[in-house]
This record gives sequence, C-alpha cells and structure tokens, in this order.
Amino acid sequence: MAKARALVLERQGELSLRDIDLKLETGPGMVRIAVHTVGVCGSDVHYYTHGRIGPFLVEAPMVLGHEAAGTVVEVGPGVTHLAVGDRVCMEPGIPDPDSRASRLGMYNVDPAVRFWATPPIHGVLTPEVVHPANYTFKLPDHVSFAEGAMVEPFAVGMQAATKARIAPGDIAVVLGAGPIGTMVALAALAGGCARVILADLAQPKLDIAAQYQGIVPVNIRERDLGEELDRLTGGWGADVVFECSGSPKAWDTIMDLPRPGGAIVVVGLPVEPVRINIAGASVKEVRIENVFRYAHQYERAIALIGSGKVDLKPLISETFAFEDAVAAFDRAVEARPTDVKLQIRVAG
Amino acid sequence: MAKARALVLERQGELSLRDIDLKLETGPGMVRIAVHTVGVCGSDVHYYTHGRIGPFLVEAPMVLGHEAAGTVVEVGPGVTHLAVGDRVCMEPGIPDPDSRASRLGMYNVDPAVRFWATPPIHGVLTPEVVHPANYTFKLPDHVSFAEGAMVEPFAVGMQAATKARIAPGDIAVVLGAGPIGTMVALAALAGGCARVILADLAQPKLDIAAQYQGIVPVNIRERDLGEELDRLTGGWGADVVFECSGSPKAWDTIMDLPRPGGAIVVVGLPVEPVRINIAGASVKEVRIENVFRYAHQYERAIALIGSGKVDLKPLISETFAFEDAVAAFDRAVEARPTDVKLQIRVAG
Amino acid sequence: MAKARALVLERQGELSLRDIDLKLETGPGMVRIAVHTVGVCGSDVHYYTHGRIGPFLVEAPMVLGHEAAGTVVEVGPGVTHLAVGDRVCMEPGIPDPDSRASRLGMYNVDPAVRFWATPPIHGVLTPEVVHPANYTFKLPDHVSFAEGAMVEPFAVGMQAATKARIAPGDIAVVLGAGPIGTMVALAALAGGCARVILADLAQPKLDIAAQYQGIVPVNIRERDLGEELDRLTGGWGADVVFECSGSPKAWDTIMDLPRPGGAIVVVGLPVEPVRINIAGASVKEVRIENVFRYAHQYERAIALIGSGKVDLKPLISETFAFEDAVAAFDRAVEARPTDVKLQIRVAG
Amino acid sequence: MAKARALVLERQGELSLRDIDLKLETGPGMVRIAVHTVGVCGSDVHYYTHGRIGPFLVEAPMVLGHEAAGTVVEVGPGVTHLAVGDRVCMEPGIPDPDSRASRLGMYNVDPAVRFWATPPIHGVLTPEVVHPANYTFKLPDHVSFAEGAMVEPFAVGMQAATKARIAPGDIAVVLGAGPIGTMVALAALAGGCARVILADLAQPKLDIAAQYQGIVPVNIRERDLGEELDRLTGGWGADVVFECSGSPKAWDTIMDLPRPGGAIVVVGLPVEPVRINIAGASVKEVRIENVFRYAHQYERAIALIGSGKVDLKPLISETFAFEDAVAAFDRAVEARPTDVKLQIRVAG
Repeated sequence: MAKARALVLERQGELSLRDIDLKLETGPGMVRIAVHTVGVCGSDVHYYTHGRIGPFLVEAPMVLGHEAAGTVVEVGPGVTHLAVGDRVCMEPGIPDPDSRASRLGMYNVDPAVRFWATPPIHGVLTPEVVHPANYTFKLPDHVSFAEGAMVEPFAVGMQAATKARIAPGDIAVVLGAGPIGTMVALAALAGGCARVILADLAQPKLDIAAQYQGIVPVNIRERDLGEELDRLTGGWGADVVFECSGSPKAWDTIMDLPRPGGAIVVVGLPVEPVRINIAGASVKEVRIENVFRYAHQYERAIALIGSGKVDLKPLISETFAFEDAVAAFDRAVEARPTDVKLQIRVAG
Repeated sequence: MAKARALVLERQGELSLRDIDLKLETGPGMVRIAVHTVGVCGSDVHYYTHGRIGPFLVEAPMVLGHEAAGTVVEVGPGVTHLAVGDRVCMEPGIPDPDSRASRLGMYNVDPAVRFWATPPIHGVLTPEVVHPANYTFKLPDHVSFAEGAMVEPFAVGMQAATKARIAPGDIAVVLGAGPIGTMVALAALAGGCARVILADLAQPKLDIAAQYQGIVPVNIRERDLGEELDRLTGGWGADVVFECSGSPKAWDTIMDLPRPGGAIVVVGLPVEPVRINIAGASVKEVRIENVFRYAHQYERAIALIGSGKVDLKPLISETFAFEDAVAAFDRAVEARPTDVKLQIRVAG
Repeated sequence: MAKARALVLERQGELSLRDIDLKLETGPGMVRIAVHTVGVCGSDVHYYTHGRIGPFLVEAPMVLGHEAAGTVVEVGPGVTHLAVGDRVCMEPGIPDPDSRASRLGMYNVDPAVRFWATPPIHGVLTPEVVHPANYTFKLPDHVSFAEGAMVEPFAVGMQAATKARIAPGDIAVVLGAGPIGTMVALAALAGGCARVILADLAQPKLDIAAQYQGIVPVNIRERDLGEELDRLTGGWGADVVFECSGSPKAWDTIMDLPRPGGAIVVVGLPVEPVRINIAGASVKEVRIENVFRYAHQYERAIALIGSGKVDLKPLISETFAFEDAVAAFDRAVEARPTDVKLQIRVAG
Repeated sequence: MAKARALVLERQGELSLRDIDLKLETGPGMVRIAVHTVGVCGSDVHYYTHGRIGPFLVEAPMVLGHEAAGTVVEVGPGVTHLAVGDRVCMEPGIPDPDSRASRLGMYNVDPAVRFWATPPIHGVLTPEVVHPANYTFKLPDHVSFAEGAMVEPFAVGMQAATKARIAPGDIAVVLGAGPIGTMVALAALAGGCARVILADLAQPKLDIAAQYQGIVPVNIRERDLGEELDRLTGGWGADVVFECSGSPKAWDTIMDLPRPGGAIVVVGLPVEPVRINIAGASVKEVRIENVFRYAHQYERAIALIGSGKVDLKPLISETFAFEDAVAAFDRAVEARPTDVKLQIRVAG
C-alpha cells in the first residue's frame, strides 16, 4: 500500500482530491504506469450524481476514472512486450483468464471482470497505477496521450461496428449523437460503411459530428429520418441500425429502418425493459446484436487512430488540470450539448 | 380457367367443399401437379376462425391449404429437372425472381411473395394445381406423400435452425411444444444440437416429442426450466433459445436462458409489441435472430427426411378423406393437445 | 439489328474501328444506354494479344470493352428505377435469374453468366448498348463517367474485401500492385482495414499507390516483406493476405504472412496448379477464400465512391478519344509501370 | 518426482513397459487422475516407427499415449467443478492461457501448446497423471471409459465439422475412411449433414463406416465418386468436402467436388506442398478451411456422445491389457484395414 493523491468519490454527490491508500506493487505480468491523461466518462459522472449504476453501489470511497493513457515506469517479471518509457493506454477491465468466457475469447461477458471505477474497484484519476501488461497497449509515437485516453470510448464503437458485421459499402443509421453515438458512427465508417446517418434532436451535437466525411446528420426535430434513409437507399433501408440513444421511444419505430435481412446493434441501454415490435422484426428477418463494453478492440482501435483513418481529436472539448478535477466533473454534470469529451491531465 | 372441386373458405367461419374456377394452364417453367396430401396448418385454421391474419383479410372465397405433396401430371416448356410421374412436394410461396431481396438470395423477405392460401391467393385443397418447377421438389421413392406434405412446416424449423448457426454439440432450449416448436426442436437436433430442452405446460404435447432421442421435455408447470438447464449445462446456459410459444410472457424471463454470447431465435410471433429486457441481453451480448417463413430449405429438409435423420411420421395425428375436409378443419379448431398435425388426402 | 461503329477484335492481334451489326432493341426490363467512357481491362488486352483466355476462344469478330459508364437514352417496359437522362454505369455480366446459383444470391458463380467481351458476347466499345435495368446503376451527380467506368475493376476489389470478412482495424497484405492489387488495397482500406501493406517489385506502381493514406508500400526487391509485417503487427502476422500477383512464386512463402486464424483471399489466378504448403496453412488454421468476379457489389462500390471514402481518379492514367481506341490498346500492350488504367471516351 | 510404470518409447523402434520418473504433484488448478483407458493413435505409432513427426524429434525416452479417460483421485487447490471419484476424459494439449491466440479463443493455434506424447512432453500410458482441471471433462454416468478415450480423436472430427460451418441438411464428401476420416464423417452427420459420402479404396474400412445411418460408402476403386455425388445432388456438388486422406493425389480432382460457393475442409496433411488447382477453386469461389487439432470441442463431443447422437463403440476394434501395451502397438503397426481404434486398458 502507498499513499497517493486521487480524485475520490466519497459518496453520492461528494468528490474530493485527496490522499488515499492504493496498491502499487508491480507483480509478475504487471506494469506500473504514470498516468498522463484521463477522460471523464458518463458512467463516472453517473456514480457521482446517483451513487450507483444498476446493481453497482458506491459503498466506500472510490477513485474515479477509467479512460486513461500514460507512460510505463516499471515492468514486472515476465513482461516482454513493454519497456519503461513506453507510452501506453490501458484497458480498464481485467477478466479472469481462466473463466469459461475468457477462454472462449469473450472476456467482456465474463461476470468476474474487475473494471476500474466500478465499485469496489478503484479507478485511475491518480498519478500511478499498476495494470496487467496484457491489457496495456503501446501508442504509436505520433498518437498523443489525449488520443490514447480516447481509445476506451472508441473501443465501444469498435465493438458495435464489429458485432454489426459490416460489409464494405454498407449504409448505417446511428440513433443518438452523444459521445457514444458519435464514437459508433466513426467506428462504423472506419469499419467499412460508405455513409452513416446520425440522428439526434440536438443540433450542436450533430454539428460536431458533421465535420466528418461520410456522416449525414439528421435533426429529427426538423426532418423525417425514414425519408432521409429512403432517399439515400432508394427505399431499401439501412444495412445496420445502431441504437445509441438508450431511449425507449427509439424502439417504437426502429423496425422501419433496417432493410430486409438487415441488423440492429444495441449500444444504448434503457434501464427498464422496452416494448419491441417483434412482428416487424420478423417480416424482415432482422438480426439484433447486443454490445457489452468490448473485447480485443484496443489494438484495432489504436491501429485505426495510428494510421490516420480515425481522428478523435476534434471530439476533445476541453482539458482540465488534475487540480481542477472536481470542476471537470461539475462541468460534465452540466451536460452542455457542445461538449463531447472532457479530459483531465493528471501529469505533464 | 377450369372448374375444380376445392375446400373453399367462403368467409370467416364458413367452409364448403364445392366447385370453383381455378387457373390450370401449364405455362413456361411451370408444372401441373395432382395433389395427393395436404396438411392443415394453424394459419389455415386461423383464417377459418378469424377471417384474417394481421393485414391479410379474407374478402372473397379462397381455397385453403398450403402444405402439399402430389404427382407431376404435366410439364410446361423449359422445365428440365421434373417429369410426368415424379412424386413431389411444393413450396407455397412464389417470389418475384427480379426483386432485390430475391436476387440477394432472401426471397422469403421479398414483400411481393405470393403465398398459397394467403388472401387473395388460392391454396391447394383441390385435385390439381399449377406451380413453378423451381419451387417443386422431387421426393425420394421411400418418402411418402404424407411426409412430403410435412416438409412445409418442417421448413420453418429448418429456417430457425439455420438462422441459429448451430455449432455441432450445442445445447438448445425450445419454448413451446406446439407443431412449430416440435418442428424446430427436430430441426435443431438434425442441425447439430446434442440436446434440446423442450418446454411447455401441456404434458400430452411433451409426451409426443419425448419419443425423439435428444429431446429433454420439461413441463414448466411442474419443474423449473432454469434449473433443468443449469443441470444440463453446468450453469453455463443454452447456446440457442428458440422462442416458439408466441407468448409475451415467455419474454419476461427469456434472458436468463442463453449462455454468454448465446442466441435467441424468434419463431413465435406475439401480435403486440412485447417488453424485452435489453439490459439482460446486453450483459451477455445475446444475438437475437428473427425468422420469416423460409428460403432454400426444401431440398435440405427433404435430404434430412430422405436419409432417415428426421422422421416426421409420428407427428401425423390423423388423416382425413377429401370429402371430410370440413370435418378435418373442425377437428383442428378443437386444438386437442394430442394432435400435432392433421392431414387431408385429396387423392389416392 | 442495327449498324454501329465499334472497336472490333477481328482475330488475335487484329483490331479495327468499324461498323458492325448489333442488337439494340430495348425489350422489357431493359434500358438503352449511350456509352460515354470505357476502361481498357487486362482481359480485353489479353484477347487482343492471345486470342483467348482459358477456354474462351475468339472465333468470330467481337466488340471489346466491359468497363463502362454512360447515359440512359431509352427505357424498356417495366423499368421503374431508371429514366432517360440518368447517368449510369453497367455491370457487364448478365446471369440467368432462374439458375440455382442466382437464386442463392451468388450469380457470379452461375456458369450461364453472359459477360461482355467474353466470346461470343460483344462488349461495349460502341456508341450504344442495351442492358438489363437490374444491372444498370445510377451514378451520383458528382461522380464522373470516368469514375463510373472504374466501378467494374473496383467491384473486384470489393468482392475480395467482402470475402475477407474484414474486422474493423485489420492489418492486410496485398501481394501485387497492378491495377487489381491496387483496387483490392483500396477496397480493403475502405472496407475496414487500418493499414494495407502493398508488396511489389515495380517501384512506379508502388509510388502511385503510396499516395493513399493507409497504404504501406513495400518494394520486395529491396525490403523483406516478413520483417515489415512483423514490425507493423508485433510479430503476429496479417489478418488478411490478398494474393493479387497471380504468380506461382507468391505461394512459396505466403503461409508465413497470415496470423494464426488469419485468411488468404485469392484474386490472382495462376494458369497452372500451384504448389501450396498445406502443413503451413494447417498449423495456423488459415482460411483461404477464392474470388470470381463479383456479385452485388456495384451499389456498394458506388456508395463508397459517392461518399468520398474512395477516390479512384488518381488511377486513371490517360484518356483516349474513341477514334484512337486502337492506339489505346497498343499503349496497354506496352504495359508501362506508370499506367494503372487507360480509358476511352466513346462520346462527349 | 515419483517412480511409475509406463509405456516408454526409448528411441525409434524400441518400446518398453518399465518404471520411469514422472511429476505427480497436484498443484493449484490441477487434478490427479487414475488413468483407465488409452487409445492408440496414429501419431503415437508414427513416433514408434519413425522417431519423429515433422520438426518433433524423439531425443529422450518418452511415455506414449494421449487419448485417455480415467478417474479423479486428487483435486488441487482452487478446483471447484471436479471432485474425487469423477469419471473424466482429458484434453491432451495445454496452452498458455496468456498467449494472444488463447485470449482470442484459438488456443489450438498457440505455438506454446504443450501436448502429451509430443516430444519432449510425456504421454499418459501410465497409471496416474496430473492435468489442469480446465482441460479435464466429466463423463456422463452411462458413457464408458472406452468411449471417453475416443473423445480425443472425435474432437478432431468436431473441429472439422465446426470449421465447415455446416448448414442443416448439407451433403458432404469425406475423402479417406481411416480413423480420422470416419470420425469426421460422424461429426459431420451429428453436426447437421443429411448425408456423407465416404470415399476410400479399402472396402473393409468402408464396411465398418457403412453401418452408420447417413453414410454413403463409395469404393473409388470400383465406382466414380463424381457420378455418385451428381446422383445425390442433382449435379450441383457437395456443400462441404473434407479431405482426410492426406494424399497429394486427392488434390488432383478435388475441385470437381464442391458446389458453387461450397467448402473444402483440410484435415489430412500431406508432408510436402501439394499442387492445387486455384483456377478451379476460383470459378466456384470455394472456401478452403484448415484444421489443427481442436479447441473448445471436448464438452460438445461429450454432449453428442452422451445424448446418444454419436455412438463410437463400434469403432473400438480391440482392447489390450496394460501388460500387452507393446503388443498393441505392434498390432497398430500392422495397419489392418479392419482395425479402426485399438485401446489399452491401463487399470480396472
């Protein structure tokens, strides 16, 4: 145990930047990382405002933060693919490699996963963290720490794009232009879609996404989504529909969107069961895929960012100093429509 | 046009066996078939009792029947793979070969499909019918007309088993032991499952299915489905769950059944939208497939019946003479739990 | 029959621009198109220089050309999705819609396909052509005829990228930087690859491809392909290897390239059987896919070109007037390494 | 280290049943098993006769045997799903759970796998063995040790059937009716094929396989395989061809067998590269899959055996006492065409 400064969620509604005891021994297969940049995620904010997410309850002070990049400062025994000084980003969920799900290659659906900033596991808004080397990934020289800290939310988009089984030249619809909807849209484009219709009610969000080639923003307060889609596909429908709004209302008309034999990929999670038009899904033989976090996406995400196919920098709305971490969270609580991603620079 | 005797649904609730005008010219690519055996399907019965199914309304007298086998009696120009005397069964839906869905190989989701005994298209409870040779399939010598008339409902099971993408040795659950649930269970076993748990409330239905090796009947009035499944899979869950009950109630707990990364294949259609536990589907990344009739399944179904892997004969509960066709339908309306499939012998 | 001016391959080695009788009636489901631009393909050139390709022998004068774009000038009965004045490109192979392969959605492997400029079918280096509307595709306003005539070779790349089942962020290798290898590389990038290593011996070809973001050119005369790949993938190997060289020599070492569980997609066709290292394929469980022309790729290809994700204009090396069509072919015979695609402007 | 009696391959051509030092500590996650039955595999025999297989050279005395079943006699710390007294079979390859291939769910292509009776790893022809609990699988009560020892070779068939992606009702061809070809044929049938044509030159092998429903034996010394296939498929071809002969000659004509869009699954390994007709594979867009051992197949194989869908008992040709283990191997060297599987009963 070592004392370290950290952004601690004391209880629902109360954050403090203070010293806390953290384990920092670099055991076999582990690396110690000096944290550089950490993104503020909706789930971090939700623990702050609500004290819980579903069954996960904040019952003791917990360090927040799980979207992180930094520099390797110590390498444990047996680690061969990383060295001190490597610039890296870290996957926040650590599965049990011996679980049945992990052995099948689906570690994200292993119920035993330990995930940063999910009670009772501490997050990484603190200067140093120890992490398994297998879940720590080197950044190319020209990819910044800020971009490295964007890999986590982008990996969700990658998982959705992978589950979609996009064929080259597909036309997709993304419902919801929040941070995750935007990540999904970019991953779908990078993953083979020719065009992605991005639908939302908030014009500022659409304006940010509209700067990317291939995104067709549709403000559904003003235009009819079905008509836009028909225009683009000759009335055939979308190859893939990504539901990223989490709104039960989205499900009322979603079956009008996919083409015969098309797919719906569910990313946004409504808390309560939603009413789904099974008959509408049947007549088109719609495939519905569900996404839970991600597995095996970090290297792929980094490859796309590193090659220049995906540029996440325009989505970083503002960067806060570590000393202003509480302010960063209060700004996130505001939920300004022009904010996509807020980040905190812990070091450097 | 020719006068022919037929079982005619005059209007909701009124059947008569009488002469009616039918088109019987054998044009290019068509064959004329002497109908031998026709099965009574739930949809036929539903038109009889309700006068409609969803948007399809009986507005004029319509011949019933779409599960049929018979003998080729005339071959139209250009038909090469069939000859007079061939014993055959017929696929009741005729798509537009030039539609986009057909060209992609998914003719079942072509909205232009013309389907026997779906208003306003006449069915085949009549001595002769003209049909496209491409949708007419030869029966092996040792497969009876009665079995040939079972290919249609079995093809629904085949479509479900195909959509499931069964891996050899999978464990499946089928919810609902009606005719379709039983067909799905048999197709799932023939299609690679090691075992299929078949769940229903009606013991007589389960008793009929229980005679097949590999089917594990569970009367959910008496036993807990989840416990049976856990016992069989060591708590891991089913690789595939086939929902064949059509009951909205089935959806309340269905997400407990699939394993992480498993699938739900929806065959039973609730009329109204159902409440679905998206969060439960997400945490396991469940894939949900929807089934609409079938495409390209007849030859596969006949191959499985012909090789002896699938024996549908025990599911034929009683056979009626053509003169007793109305009685056959009235018996079907009774819905005896010991009846799986009633058939009508039109000729022979 | 109507007399029309056309580029006619009289016999091996002899081309003439002269009048020839062609069928130009616009029957049901057909459109008549004023041809604007036609690309010169390696197969056209091969018929010119060798008089045959495999079993296809030039036994009578044949119009060359199959990569074409133009303007609809007449619409046959029953055509609804095209109108006079539409700018279009045309898929050169016309399958039998009733063949078994077509009905399964794989019309490209239908042996009955009739393909432009494949003996004895005339090609389209002539002012007008009649074609099925179903195989004629509208071009977006901002896509030029020159780009429209590039859709055909790009569709081969699309078929290869589709068969590869690219997961977003894959790393691919393309062997051979000729026109098809370059098309495959661009389709693989558009279809989800993060990076494509393009390997060839000819530096000018690599220089042309190197202007595209994501392509990593490797001159295998100077650098070791395996080393470059190891550097990019940390020694893991390529997710997909596209063999586009057609060289038997490529097969000597190809099994070193894919990662465990990776794929090889074969586009280049060696005439004679090649020696393949099955043991090397086995130990990695390599999947080998074969590509024959394309199916259902035109709309997808046009969508990618239309959205700006794929820019084929830099690959058009020179455009010839129709009167200089023979000169265009003689230039193609030269096979300059700086030439990717030569085109002939038939009209306008 | 403990002294234990074992069948030891001293060097090429020399076997002895003698005491040897073996590690038998039951560490965390491990179980100790009293070995009951061990099958004699072609690879064991090949080490005996040739002293090597490819790069694997017998350089020190090695215990043979890797197809094994037995009874758990001790359970190491942390093992929860097995108990003393459990009847089990064991998967002989132990991968590194932290390797990249293992984490992706493909542990069979992890180059670090340690495999019983592959130099320098000892096999299990000895009374006791210590093994990871994760690779030790419970047998149902009604499945004998003899059947349990058949799971290993059957798992190869399962891997092939899984890679084939069989659709229900497929027609397959298996080339080669040796033990592996027969296992593949049975797995293909259990995995969804309607019929499997099994082709070989040796009538006794075909006669053994012919007792299984769905297997169509073809003695290619007497009958033409292509004709038989055409008869069964109406000239369309096989959905899947499993190459299990390992003979380079099989590749001369193999491309005639698959249907357009069909698959070839390669199980038999020719030592030298073989000449493959790429042009023939291309024109049908044949998919070629390669198989290396198996991954995640034991539970599936046991489920199929346990449910009665697969009966491997008729393939056990003779059982030898442990004292006669050398005789068992000498009998295996004879390679009688009527022998499928020889087994050695180590205990009981």
